[in-house]
Amino acid sequence: MTYCVGITLDKGMVFASDSRTNAGVDQVCAYPKMHLFEWPGERVFILLSSGNLATTQALVRRLHLENSQENITSLKSVPNMMAAADYVGDVSVSIQSKQSGLCQSSANFTASFILGGQIAGAPMEMFLIYPEGNHISPSPYSPFLQIGEIKYGKPILDRIIRPSMNMADACRCALVSIDSTMRSNLSVGPPIDLAIYESEKLSINRRETFAKETGFLRELRSQWAEGLVNLFKNLPKFDWESGDR
Amino acid sequence: MTYCVGITLDKGMVFASDSRTNAGVDQVCAYPKMHLFEWPGERVFILLSSGNLATTQALVRRLHLENSQENITSLKSVPNMMAAADYVGDVSVSIQSKQSGLCQSSANFTASFILGGQIAGAPMEMFLIYPEGNHISPSPYSPFLQIGEIKYGKPILDRIIRPSMNMADACRCALVSIDSTMRSNLSVGPPIDLAIYESEKLSINRRETFAKETGFLRELRSQWAEGLVNLFKNLPKFDWESGDR
Repeated sequence: MTYCVGITLDKGMVFASDSRTNAGVDQVCAYPKMHLFEWPGERVFILLSSGNLATTQALVRRLHLENSQENITSLKSVPNMMAAADYVGDVSVSIQSKQSGLCQSSANFTASFILGGQIAGAPMEMFLIYPEGNHISPSPYSPFLQIGEIKYGKPILDRIIRPSMNMADACRCALVSIDSTMRSNLSVGPPIDLAIYESEKLSINRRETFAKETGFLRELRSQWAEGLVNLFKNLPKFDWESGDR
Repeated sequence: MTYCVGITLDKGMVFASDSRTNAGVDQVCAYPKMHLFEWPGERVFILLSSGNLATTQALVRRLHLENSQENITSLKSVPNMMAAADYVGDVSVSIQSKQSGLCQSSANFTASFILGGQIAGAPMEMFLIYPEGNHISPSPYSPFLQIGEIKYGKPILDRIIRPSMNMADACRCALVSIDSTMRSNLSVGPPIDLAIYESEKLSINRRETFAKETGFLRELRSQWAEGLVNLFKNLPKFDWESGDR
């Protein structure tokens, strides 16, 4: 499994992804699920992937390959973000269809993607691309998209994320959301990749990788965990409780 | 959908359930999913139900009916908690099988249950009874059981629940867990039923129903929500953040 989240703010976009892949409960590996395609000053795309690893790797390889070819549809040539999402959806469907046609297998070849970015002259946009190739973009009322193991980390996003918030706060919320998911689900694991795109910048502002038990992420995790316990201790008492509980 | 949670502590057990039932997105109703069977001083059972409403109602009616009959297996007659869980599992399977046999339908007649209680002379116990009639009980490392829409409310249980904690804290944690689920999933809704059983008491200590926007639950919800935001605001800063963020 996987957990990826993309957040759209007034000021920019935040992307975060875990790195665990697994086939069943064994063959557990760490692969990045964040892929950057950047032509500074012209166009930039951040792609997060969830699902069959062979499908997602084939898609990323094909996107890179087609960027280097002239006169075909590619991330380098698409006229707008909507066309980019259509293109990624088409490539995804074609890879899945080819694989399903090649063999009689109960394996699941599907994959989902979050694609965000900006092309010079147009606003930044973000899409969730379904295995069927169609897509949705977030709304101001639900300014985030999730793929993979999405439920454990959704409550904190529902509570905190607002389009007007600043980028650093959204980054912290994404890390807490992934941390909560890692604690409750073995199929989501470190390191965590984080990317920040500031609107109109036309290049990736920041790209970081956080290992589980080092530096900033450890501090954030422990402070959040201790803070929750303290917050919990100070919740209202029931009228039937004795003073000492 | 539904969300129910049962928590086993050293001192006793806590049970909590939402009240929303729905068929698709309409026919949304409120039904209690907590059912008490009590012979004070002799035996006590708390049953939480999730799944097909016709199945769970039929099961509860049949349990009550069989309690009033002599010389048959019933909650009143079972020799121990394990036999009680087997009995509820058997009744559940028989209701589901009968219904599935009566009609060709794609409807899902399955149901899951949490059954906790105590019979005089034996320790209190809790079971999660699957639609197949088999069951598990919690461990000291995972001292809670959940049925229904379980993922949204699991992170806070993972972080807070320990067997040594007191009953009131476990009640608060159960309410927060259900609140988080209600915020992220429309199929879980108020009022919330709460029951507390203190080990060796052989009667229900406390049974309360909390409406969404009244009194204690409103205070708990708002204090938790505000506390989370404050906790969030004080998380560590990234090294690239300016002082004012």
